[in-house]
Amino acid sequence: MGEFTEDTKVEQVSETHWKGEVTPRWSVGSIPNGGYLMGIAAQVLKEGLSKPDPLTITGHYLDRAEEGPVDIDFELMRSGRSVSTGCAKLIQGGVERARFTASFGDLEKTKGETWVGTEPPAWPNPETCITHPNTLTIHDRIDMRFAPEEGAWISGELGDRAEHILVNRFTDGSAPDPLSLLFFTDCVPPTVFALYGTAGWVPTLELTVQVRARPAPGDLLCRFTTRYLTNGLLEEDGEIWDSNNQLVAISRQLAKYRRPISE
Amino acid sequence: MGEFTEDTKVEQVSETHWKGEVTPRWSVGSIPNGGYLMGIAAQVLKEGLSKPDPLTITGHYLDRAEEGPVDIDFELMRSGRSVSTGCAKLIQGGVERARFTASFGDLEKTKGETWVGTEPPAWPNPETCITHPNTLTIHDRIDMRFAPEEGAWISGELGDRAEHILVNRFTDGSAPDPLSLLFFTDCVPPTVFALYGTAGWVPTLELTVQVRARPAPGDLLCRFTTRYLTNGLLEEDGEIWDSNNQLVAISRQLAKYRRPISE
Repeated sequence: MGEFTEDTKVEQVSETHWKGEVTPRWSVGSIPNGGYLMGIAAQVLKEGLSKPDPLTITGHYLDRAEEGPVDIDFELMRSGRSVSTGCAKLIQGGVERARFTASFGDLEKTKGETWVGTEPPAWPNPETCITHPNTLTIHDRIDMRFAPEEGAWISGELGDRAEHILVNRFTDGSAPDPLSLLFFTDCVPPTVFALYGTAGWVPTLELTVQVRARPAPGDLLCRFTTRYLTNGLLEEDGEIWDSNNQLVAISRQLAKYRRPISE
Repeated sequence: MGEFTEDTKVEQVSETHWKGEVTPRWSVGSIPNGGYLMGIAAQVLKEGLSKPDPLTITGHYLDRAEEGPVDIDFELMRSGRSVSTGCAKLIQGGVERARFTASFGDLEKTKGETWVGTEPPAWPNPETCITHPNTLTIHDRIDMRFAPEEGAWISGELGDRAEHILVNRFTDGSAPDPLSLLFFTDCVPPTVFALYGTAGWVPTLELTVQVRARPAPGDLLCRFTTRYLTNGLLEEDGEIWDSNNQLVAISRQLAKYRRPISE
C-alpha cells in the first residue's frame, strides 16, 4: 500500500461517522495540505456512497486543520444508479475544519461521447527538468520536475506568466489512483510564485476537482494556470494527464494571495 | 426592480429558514434553469451571511426542481471578518432539489494584487451578430447575440470547436449585479451544441461560480468553452466581462451529455 493510501485510510464507526488520522507527512509548515485533506474525505465518501470514483468533489476550507485525529461526519444527499452525492465534514476538537461535497460514480461504467479540444503540453525532458528543492515535509512525498522554461521561478527568475508545467509522482513509487489525483491537483507551489516569488501566502478558500478517468501507472503530466488575479483573489486551474496522455483530472480553486508581511 | 431580482426574492421565516417562489419565467421546457435556482439560493446566503458578494458558490443539482413554492434551509458554516461561508438547501415537497455551498464577502473592500493574464475576446459587432431564436421561456428574459463566426451552429452548421462567444443582457433592461451574474453563467445553450447540434440533453451535475467584481451597467461579454468531453462527461468553463472590459465572473460546471434518444 502506498503512503498516500496508508495516510488517508479511515475507519467507519457508525452509519454516519468515520475516524481518521491527519498524519504530519503531508504538511506545508505545520499546516496539512488541502488536497491531502480532500483525499481523507474522499475515502469516506467512496465508502459511504458505495461508488469508487469522484466525478466532482468540492472542498470549502473553513479553519486550519491540524495534524492528529480527525472525525468525519458523512451525509448521503442522494443515492442514484450511476451517480450518488454526499457530504463529508472534517472535524477536529469539535470545530469543522473543512467540508467536502461530492458526486461519485464508476468511471469504468460511464458511457457516452468522447471529444478532446486541447492537446496536452509536450512532456518535459527529464534530463533538463528543474527539480523542486525539498523545503517542506510534503516535498518528501512527491518528485516534482518542472519544464525548464516554466521552472525558472524556482531559482528566483520571475516571469510574466502564472503557469507551471511539470511531471509529478509519488517518491515511494506507488501508482496514482482516482483519489490521489485529488491530492496532485493541490500539492504544487502556487502559480503566482512565478510572478511574485515564493515568499507569499496563498490559502485555498475552495477547491473543486473533476476526475475523468482512472490513471495509468507511471508519471503524471500537470499544468496549472492562473489567468485572473483580482484584488488578491485568484483561480488556479489544473489539468492532469497520465502516462498514456489521457486527461484524468481537471481542477479549479479559489485562493487568496497575500504578499509577505516584510514587504 | 428587474425581473431577475423580483423572481429571486425570498422571505426569512426563522433564523435558518427562508421561503421563495420558483417562477415559470426562467425555465427550459418545464425545468427551472440551474443558474436561476442558484440566484434564489444566493439571495438567502447573502442575507444569512450578511455579506453582499458571492466570492465562490457551488451548486449540486440533486433532483429536478419544479415551478412553484420552495423552502430554503440555511446553515452558517463559518462567520469571518472578510469571508463567511454557508450552505443553502432548496427543498420542494420535502425533497432536496439542490444544495449550494458558498463563501461570501464584500468585493468593494477586497484588497490585494491585480494581474490579468488573458485579454477578453473582441466584442462582436451587434449589426452582424446572430440572435438566438426564442424557443424556450428563459429566452424571453435574455437577449443573446452570438459572434457570427461562433454562432453558425444556431442555423445547423456544426463545427469542430465547443465554444460560444456572445453578448448577453436582460431583455427588461435591468443592469447586471453580482447575483444575476450567477444566472448568466448558466443560461446559454450548451457549448457541445456547436459540435453535435441542439437536440441533445446536457444536465448540470455541479456548477461553481467565482464572482470577482460588481459589474458595470450595460451588456456582458461572455465566453463559454468545453475542452474535454470524456465518455459523456464534460466541463463548461465560463468567463464574463462587463461593459468596461473588466472580468466580473468565471464559472465551471460538470455536465452530462446525452444524445437524443431518436439517434
